[in-house]
This record gives sequence, C-alpha cells and structure tokens, in this order.
Amino acid sequence: MEHPSAVAETLDHIRGRAPLVHNIINYVAMDVAANALLAVGASPVMAHALDEMRDFVAIAGALTVNIGTLSPPWVEAMLVATAAAGELGKPWALDPVGVGATPYRTTVARELAARRPTVIRGNASEILVLAGDAATSTKGVDSTRGVDEARDAARALAANARCTVAVTGAVDYVTDGTTAFTVANGHPMMTKVTALGCTATALIGACLAVGTAPAPAAAHALAILGVCGEIAARGAEGPGSFRMRLIDALHQIDGNTLRRTARVHSAA
Amino acid sequence: MEHPSAVAETLDHIRGRAPLVHNIINYVAMDVAANALLAVGASPVMAHALDEMRDFVAIAGALTVNIGTLSPPWVEAMLVATAAAGELGKPWALDPVGVGATPYRTTVARELAARRPTVIRGNASEILVLAGDAATSTKGVDSTRGVDEARDAARALAANARCTVAVTGAVDYVTDGTTAFTVANGHPMMTKVTALGCTATALIGACLAVGTAPAPAAAHALAILGVCGEIAARGAEGPGSFRMRLIDALHQIDGNTLRRTARVHSAA
Amino acid sequence: MEHPSAVAETLDHIRGRAPLVHNIINYVAMDVAANALLAVGASPVMAHALDEMRDFVAIAGALTVNIGTLSPPWVEAMLVATAAAGELGKPWALDPVGVGATPYRTTVARELAARRPTVIRGNASEILVLAGDAATSTKGVDSTRGVDEARDAARALAANARCTVAVTGAVDYVTDGTTAFTVANGHPMMTKVTALGCTATALIGACLAVGTAPAPAAAHALAILGVCGEIAARGAEGPGSFRMRLIDALHQIDGNTLRRTARVHSAA
Repeated sequence: MEHPSAVAETLDHIRGRAPLVHNIINYVAMDVAANALLAVGASPVMAHALDEMRDFVAIAGALTVNIGTLSPPWVEAMLVATAAAGELGKPWALDPVGVGATPYRTTVARELAARRPTVIRGNASEILVLAGDAATSTKGVDSTRGVDEARDAARALAANARCTVAVTGAVDYVTDGTTAFTVANGHPMMTKVTALGCTATALIGACLAVGTAPAPAAAHALAILGVCGEIAARGAEGPGSFRMRLIDALHQIDGNTLRRTARVHSAA
Repeated sequence: MEHPSAVAETLDHIRGRAPLVHNIINYVAMDVAANALLAVGASPVMAHALDEMRDFVAIAGALTVNIGTLSPPWVEAMLVATAAAGELGKPWALDPVGVGATPYRTTVARELAARRPTVIRGNASEILVLAGDAATSTKGVDSTRGVDEARDAARALAANARCTVAVTGAVDYVTDGTTAFTVANGHPMMTKVTALGCTATALIGACLAVGTAPAPAAAHALAILGVCGEIAARGAEGPGSFRMRLIDALHQIDGNTLRRTARVHSAA
Repeated sequence: MEHPSAVAETLDHIRGRAPLVHNIINYVAMDVAANALLAVGASPVMAHALDEMRDFVAIAGALTVNIGTLSPPWVEAMLVATAAAGELGKPWALDPVGVGATPYRTTVARELAARRPTVIRGNASEILVLAGDAATSTKGVDSTRGVDEARDAARALAANARCTVAVTGAVDYVTDGTTAFTVANGHPMMTKVTALGCTATALIGACLAVGTAPAPAAAHALAILGVCGEIAARGAEGPGSFRMRLIDALHQIDGNTLRRTARVHSAA
C-alpha cells in the first residue's frame, strides 16, 4: 500500500474505533491535545493519580507520557503507568519536552526512555540530547537545531532504546533503526502555537491505539497533523485563528484529502 | 411562570449579580469553564489550596467540585470545601467525571456524593455507576449509555443522596426525586469539544449562586448552554470554531432568545 | 524618544531576540499566556519543579510568578525561583492574583512582594491590599476598585518594595515611585476573557527579558496588549472570537501601528 493510503487507513481506524488514549501530559498542552484527539475521532483521558494509573492503562488503547510540566508526584505516576504499559503490552509514546534544558528534566527523560517506549517524539535538540549528544543544549522547550542534524542521533537512539524515534521540524524524520520515513507536511505557523509538538505525540498515541505499527503510526500522526496544519494556514490571520482552524481541520479531514496531500516517503 | 421565562430570569440574575463561583475543577476544563462563566456574566475563581478552601467557599455564591484530574491533595481540598459548604449553607454541584472508569475514581465520587451535594451532573454512564448499577462501566470519560437508560438510576440517586441529579446527553434529564425536567437543547458537536460537560456543571454553579432552586438551576444551566450550542453550531466548521462561537453565544444570549428557544419541560 | 516609539523598540527587541521567559503561573492562565508570548515573539517555558527552578531561572531572560492557583509545593518553587532570580540578577514580575480574597493568598503575596520583585502587576483591589489598605477586599479575582483609587497605594508600595508597580484597569498606571506612566489602551472585552491580567504580567516578563528598564517594560507590555485588544475588538462577536483575534493581533502587530496607537504618557 502506498504511504498516503496507509495514512488514510489509520485515520479510518481511529474514526471507526474511537480508541481511548490515556495521556499523562503537561498542563499547557491538556486543552489543545484533548481537543485534537476528540476532533480526529479518538477518546482522550487525562489522568495522573497514582492510584488509578494501572487501571487507566489497562482500559486504554495507548498511553502517552509528556514531561513538559513534570514534578515528583507526576514522575512517579509516569513510572507506574509505563511499567503497567510494559506488563500489559500497551504501546506508549514518550514526549521528552525540554530535555537538556535542566539536569532534572534530562535525568527523568533518560529514565523514561530506558523503559522501552514504543515511540519517542521530540524536536531535533531533544532527540540529540536524549541520544547523548553532549554538545547540544535546548533553549527552554524550543529546538535550536534542524531535523537533518539529528538523523544519526535518532537512528542511534532507536537502536539503543529499541523503539521508534520521531524528530519533528520542517520535514519530520521517523526511524525504528531499520525502516525510516520522512513526512513533509506542516506549516511554520505550527511553531507559533503552544503545545502542538505535545499534540503530535498525543496523536501518535491515537495511531498506536488502533494497532498501526510504531514507525508508521508516528509517520501517520505527523502527516495527519501536518496536512491539517496546511489546511488551517489557508485563511488564518495569526496563531489564534490558526489553532482554531487546525482543530476544525482535524475534524473535517478525510481519507481522500490525505491520499492527495500526505507527503510520507521512505527514507534511509 | 413558564419554564423558558424562568430560564431567562435566572440569566438576568446572573448578569445582574455576577456571582462568585468557586470551582475545584480538572486541569483540562479550567480554561473553557472559566471563560464560559465569565461570558455568561458570572465571576469564576479556580482554587484548590487546603489553606484557603473554607475562605473561598465563604465568599462564593456556590461551589463546584469536579474530579476529572483528581489526586490525593485535590481530593483533600474537595472534602474540606464540601464540608465548609455544608456548614455555611452554600449550594454545591458535583461532577463525577469518569466515575466507574477506575476503582479510585469510583471511591472518591461516592464519598463526595454522600456529602449532600445540591446537584450531581453526569452523563448516563456516570449516573448509572454512581447509583450503584454494577453492570455499567464507563469508557474513560465518555458515556456508553443513553440518558433514558439512566432515568430510574437518577431518581434513585436523587432519593438516596437527597439531591438533584442531572443526566446530560441528547435530551437532558433533571430530577430531585419528586420534580423532573427534560431539556431538549444542544447539538452533537458539543461532544467533540473537551470539558463541555464540566462547563455545564460550572454553569449550574452560577445558577445555584443566584438562588435558583436546585432542580430548576440545573435545568436552566443546561438550557442556556444547549441554546448557545445550537447558536454556535450554525456556521461552525468544526469543534474549534464551534467552541469559540459557543463562548461568544454565552456572552450574547438574551432573555428573549431563551424564551423562544429553551426547550425545558416538566417530566415524570 | 517618544513613548510610542519606545514601545515599538521593545517589540522589535522581543521579535529579534525571542527571549526565554520562565513562568510559574496558574493553571487557568497557562494556555493563553504561553500563546500570547509565542505570538508576540518570545519563547515561553512553564515549569515549577523545585529541582529545576534555579536552572530555568539561570537560562531565562526573566521570570514571572503568578499565585492564581497556588498551593504549598508551588509556593516553595516560587520562593526558590525568586531567590535564584535575586542571586543571578534576573528581573522578575509578580502577579498577586486575588490577594485579599483569602488570608493564605495575602500571606503568600506579601512574602513574595518582600523579595524585591522587579515589577508587581495587579488590579486596583490587589494593589490596595498589597500596599496594606485594610479597608479593601477583593471579590475573588476581580477588582472592586478603580485604578485612580489605587495610585497612592501604588506609589507607596513601589517605595516600600523598591520595585515598579503596575495597576491595570480602564487606564493603567505604572510607577516606580519616581517616574510614572499611564497607558490608555485596551478594551472592556478584556475583562470577559479569563487570565488576560496574567497574560499582561507574562508580557511584562518578555519586555524585562530584553533589557527594557522596569517601569517602561511594564508600560510597554500593557500598551502592546492594549493596542492588540483594541484591534481584536473590531469585528469580535464576543469573548471567544475576541481572544482568538487578540492572539492573532499579538502576532501581526508592528512598530508603525504601535507608534500610531500606543497611548503611553508620563504621569505624576
């Protein structure tokens, strides 16, 4: 099957099954990520209480773990939830927001990355730091590096962590160490709305939850979000209207549009 | 007074008094619920610190308690706040988000429901679980059951908890065990925006805060939100623009429109 | 340099340098404040973990501290972060949301105000309470007093706390005890969107982060937000579309528009 058709098929599965996606996600991203998941057809739940982590992982199709506004009780919940995901065979995606910006963040992100996430999604700086590049630091939560600079690091991280790694930026790069994709969708305005990287990870959770294999799941989520970003940018007057139109587009997007506009390609 | 006129009168009271509504509410719902309360004319406060719970309840016209993203420190605040509401005679509304999804959530929701809330609002699954229906489980935070299936449970819960119970869905059902209403306003797009159920509960808080009796307060809040949902849906291109237009509509709505379009009826 | 030109220059600096602004900010405000900072050209980070407070302050251009949804662990983070700001010479802005509404909030706000913030921004009630006016209380988080009633209190607070104080309302007043400004921009609709006061404080952080002196930084941030509020109000149909258009305006605003429309004046 051609890649764009596979993207359309993943969307069909999300729409048909409305999978439950459990997100341990930062405070800034909760609203936009929940609305994006609902708009695309998934069923989001945001929860972090230790006493219900295992229960939510058990009923969810996938888990996403995002360290954007981490603190010790939340990290404890992340560790319990990811352990449960491992035991129960549930796929999970890690978003190491701002890894490299502070030692605490780096320690937590590395501990989570060592727990066999199904997918890790980050910007180029984040992936370089997570792969052990000592020369890279992140400026807060924004990347200071290009995706192409992080390709080798992504492959190394994928091999070491035995997972799929997605580096997002102007053209996204997804690799599981063997198979790789580029996704050439999206719009620069996406960097002007907070938490759209986090939202990408949440959508990867939705694609994993319907059983799409890890590397395609990451590529499909990025293609769906990117195509919707392109649609949203047409007629947007700034990041406020862009965000509103992006949520509209995630609701309206259909398979035919994805087949025509998704730019997912196999890569080295 | 006809029901639609009573709805209009409650709105007038909110606009005229700008009642302070204290919300202990989940992270996902905070933004949209605060904006909805402001738009309709109320004055929202979101606070959860144990050391100020009693003080906020004392100055507020009503309290709302929402367990969407509960954790032990927040539950402790909920218990202190609801105890204060009881002592000070302040009305309060409970939103048992996702009760039934995990044992922790069910335990907390039942403990809160036993503390004499003025109103409990939930979807059909939530009300069935809270009323003790062992055969029902909730899928995350979305309902798997219709409102009509939960009518008996709502009446039983209202009798047991000595409160008003509102079951929201395509046609809402409100009962205090004796008097009952249906509210036939709203739009399917409301299920595609996160936290609009939570927002309904926040608006019930506003209606309680101006002294409307419990069952009418719940029905009026649901009618106001539902009518605004119908207005918002006209011209919305998806859940993003729908949400924006809903907030606009809550600001613009007037008594004449409510008298013409609110579909609140007495029921069995 | 004329004041409006100085406002335009501050905006140019933000756009040119994309300063990192670290915000310890309430849950309700996180989304809109982060989006406002991104739209205007700054780089926001929201973080509150004790273990990374000092590290974030060290890499940020400025810190903002907002007590809207305070709780003990967050207050601890605020104390560590503001101590680090003092040691590292980083400017920081305090937003004493709802001070006066509860004793806990008042105690925490006074403790923070005693730690030499660079700027304190509040509504008239908040500044009156913080300056020690025993006759004022705040109704939740909304002001019950006019800006002009708080001018003396603002000057006294500026002298006592050795900082700049900004009182926001219909016409804002900014004073460092010696130099003062009024800012006559904005629109009444801004009071109908939650957390725009918090957003003003976040924007003050951005202006401080590019090296603008404290009193001008506060005035420029309020002028930028106010002018964008005026632009947003044209064509808005309510607070929902107003908020969207405000974010768009913060992205589109340029120096020429500010030079023509910013109403910043020296005052007594």
